[in-house]
Amino acid sequence: MSAENKIGTYQFVAEPFHVDFTGRLTMGVLGNHLLNAAGFHSTERGFGIAKLNEEDYTWVLSRLAIELDEMPFQYEPFSVETWVENVYRLFTDRNFAVLDKNGKTLGYARSVWAMISTVTRKPADLMAMHNGNIVDYICERSCPIEKPSRIKVKNQEPIAAITAKYSDIDINGHFNSVRYIEHVLDLFPLEKFKEKRVRRFEIAYMAESYFGEQLLFFMDQEEGTDSYDVEVRKESGEAVCRSKVIFS
Amino acid sequence: MSAENKIGTYQFVAEPFHVDFTGRLTMGVLGNHLLNAAGFHSTERGFGIAKLNEEDYTWVLSRLAIELDEMPFQYEPFSVETWVENVYRLFTDRNFAVLDKNGKTLGYARSVWAMISTVTRKPADLMAMHNGNIVDYICERSCPIEKPSRIKVKNQEPIAAITAKYSDIDINGHFNSVRYIEHVLDLFPLEKFKEKRVRRFEIAYMAESYFGEQLLFFMDQEEGTDSYDVEVRKESGEAVCRSKVIFS
Repeated sequence: MSAENKIGTYQFVAEPFHVDFTGRLTMGVLGNHLLNAAGFHSTERGFGIAKLNEEDYTWVLSRLAIELDEMPFQYEPFSVETWVENVYRLFTDRNFAVLDKNGKTLGYARSVWAMISTVTRKPADLMAMHNGNIVDYICERSCPIEKPSRIKVKNQEPIAAITAKYSDIDINGHFNSVRYIEHVLDLFPLEKFKEKRVRRFEIAYMAESYFGEQLLFFMDQEEGTDSYDVEVRKESGEAVCRSKVIFS
Repeated sequence: MSAENKIGTYQFVAEPFHVDFTGRLTMGVLGNHLLNAAGFHSTERGFGIAKLNEEDYTWVLSRLAIELDEMPFQYEPFSVETWVENVYRLFTDRNFAVLDKNGKTLGYARSVWAMISTVTRKPADLMAMHNGNIVDYICERSCPIEKPSRIKVKNQEPIAAITAKYSDIDINGHFNSVRYIEHVLDLFPLEKFKEKRVRRFEIAYMAESYFGEQLLFFMDQEEGTDSYDVEVRKESGEAVCRSKVIFS
């Protein structure tokens, strides 16, 4: 299979209720489109969630890093290209490119996924699935943004708290992965988004949270930079996810 | 123009991050799709917001009522049909039908819109726009659900409060119309959505709210029914929107 056949391309439009006050697509909606593109691409290759569910497996998103020069503006069509960079025993790396309507690259994203058994909730060996044919989809194309980093938050004083509500909960009964992106960005004042834009957004998912749980948000600012590390914790102290937001 | 030519039909799919814990499309996402369908249909007829903005006018959604027997399930394609029922001097009624992938009607929606000047913020005379040709788009098709009702809330004790955050704000700097739908449904416990489903949802928009404003939620339950009236108010007491939620 040629490299080109290994790349999936999907078309989207920046809908009016999916842009922020600057008229640009929100990071949460872009994250949703990336995950949809991942879903289409894996489904077309026999590794979609619906198919895996029949075999008692499912994909779990572990990390996502998005880095962009520019976000699509309201009503603008854009496309997402996605391909598999690597497959390890317990993880696979999937990359993305975001292109404007003229084919100009707006930015890239990286994601890390694990597969788990829906019966035991334990990680599956990717190499053992479908006779290991997942490696046939590995594509040589480069992704010129840094891999997701290790995020550590020292601050022990929460700056915000939310209770997981109906609209936050997905079909698995878990807090919706896309909603975390929105809640993290909601920690910042509007002025921040007026003066700057999010150049890079990272999120690492550690544990599931559920309806009615209280989530506490802790944040460190990296000294002398406009980079913020965020940790979302349950009241028990258990980390649910960590995020890094870099403005520029 | 025949009745059929006056109806616009638009295709959608219930995406995985757009369904709730029961696997059904959320009311907020359906609302968004209805508003998109309205946008496509009006744009195709020379009354789209982009065109109107050039003439210093814009559409303002005043009321929305959605009544459904069933919501599309995750991954299911569905379609939205929309048409103009009536045009008055200051308002126009736009209706919708929601159909499943086999063309079976899942439900209907009604909406009421005003046009305002973006300069004076005052209502425009629809009959005076584009030589009154908006009446050419009126379609005889019936919409077998009740019109939006007058909603009144007596309770003076708020049951919830939120502060308008970055993700709540749209391109006009106003609280996003779709977000109100989510916040209203977030007033209910998960059990309610386990035992019942929202049969009818109504919302009437009265005033704009802005980043950082606190919004208070007041609710009455109609005696002996599973019908709830909600009012969202600013701290000043000004009503921002009213909603009716009927479970069945």
